[in-house]
Amino acid sequence: MPDSNEPQVVWHEHAVTRDDRERSNGHRGCVVWLTGLSGCGKSTVANLVDHRLYQRGVRSYVLDGDNVRHGLNATPRMLAERYGQAFAERFGLGFSQQDREENIRRVGEVAKLLCDIGLVTLTAFVSPYRRDRDAIRAGMAAGDFLEVFVDASLAVCESRDPKGFYKQARAGKIKDFTGVHTPYEPPENPELVLDANNSPPELLADRVVQLLIETGKIR
Amino acid sequence: MPDSNEPQVVWHEHAVTRDDRERSNGHRGCVVWLTGLSGCGKSTVANLVDHRLYQRGVRSYVLDGDNVRHGLNATPRMLAERYGQAFAERFGLGFSQQDREENIRRVGEVAKLLCDIGLVTLTAFVSPYRRDRDAIRAGMAAGDFLEVFVDASLAVCESRDPKGFYKQARAGKIKDFTGVHTPYEPPENPELVLDANNSPPELLADRVVQLLIETGKIR
Repeated sequence: MPDSNEPQVVWHEHAVTRDDRERSNGHRGCVVWLTGLSGCGKSTVANLVDHRLYQRGVRSYVLDGDNVRHGLNATPRMLAERYGQAFAERFGLGFSQQDREENIRRVGEVAKLLCDIGLVTLTAFVSPYRRDRDAIRAGMAAGDFLEVFVDASLAVCESRDPKGFYKQARAGKIKDFTGVHTPYEPPENPELVLDANNSPPELLADRVVQLLIETGKIR
Repeated sequence: MPDSNEPQVVWHEHAVTRDDRERSNGHRGCVVWLTGLSGCGKSTVANLVDHRLYQRGVRSYVLDGDNVRHGLNATPRMLAERYGQAFAERFGLGFSQQDREENIRRVGEVAKLLCDIGLVTLTAFVSPYRRDRDAIRAGMAAGDFLEVFVDASLAVCESRDPKGFYKQARAGKIKDFTGVHTPYEPPENPELVLDANNSPPELLADRVVQLLIETGKIR
């Protein structure tokens, strides 16, 4: 896609293609996008799936909302330590709606890259806004994006509160917390809905692996 | 690395470790950071190395300055089409020194991620500033970052001018072009210097593969 209006940006064809890599891996690349409230079990399920796939010889990786915040999408305070205040203010990502949108956009771009590498890419982000998730789906080939709704009620998530976030949000120590202050928009047509109110994460992980088999991503 | 001051950011241990992936791959992950003037041959060498590694069964990937600009580090104009003007102005990356710094910072973070996945990660960016490259090295474990200076003189790069950038820069149609308007700072202690004035890219690619063998990344 050469772009005549931005002469410093030219598209390069890579010598080794995604097809080559997938053939060599023995499975397809894809993005399994887990979405749901904080505490619903996204990261737990993603890591269980990652481990099951590893045992099957499938190449996979977990992109985790919390972890990405230490590097690619560092907060202003983290960036300030290394790059100075002006840089941190310009490029650091906070938790406003716009900053969350950019957080998810960047993660989506990295997930697409990992998909191109041929990995089964598991992402575990609250990603509360339908528009942000749909934008990632729209930027990928049909079938490459598998949206998985990890469906646990706010009451269940808040009663678990594994990281104490809900307690802090209710006490006003965390602002803009999804489910407490800002809405969560469930997917309208996800590839899979996991009932995370009652089922153990091991069972939910099995269902994700099953989805990958049924959609022909892995054998 | 829990961070008590940013309660929404918590470090997760991944169930499958980098060691696990490297054992399974049969080689180490690392970042081979190619740096040099536009037209020196970085992308050509990177793609040749990628192809040689593929043929050896080594898992590798090329991160390319130009390609990344279509996704993760999209320019304001590209973002505006999809996300609107306000978003694009806040998050789009141009070609100012500060924006280039953020461009390289993000690429460095993605490269670190691919290294953690266990890939031999080849990056092909002008990355003209020593400070930016050193910041990436400083953020990685010793030995994971291999800096390769693709050394061709400005005269040679300008005479090749494969994309016509130098001609446009001299005509004032591209601003802030490295070597023409802004400096290129060569590495002081690179792991490898490639003489790209005279040697064909195939020979330079062989030398990179040799470096990977000598440093024990691959067999």
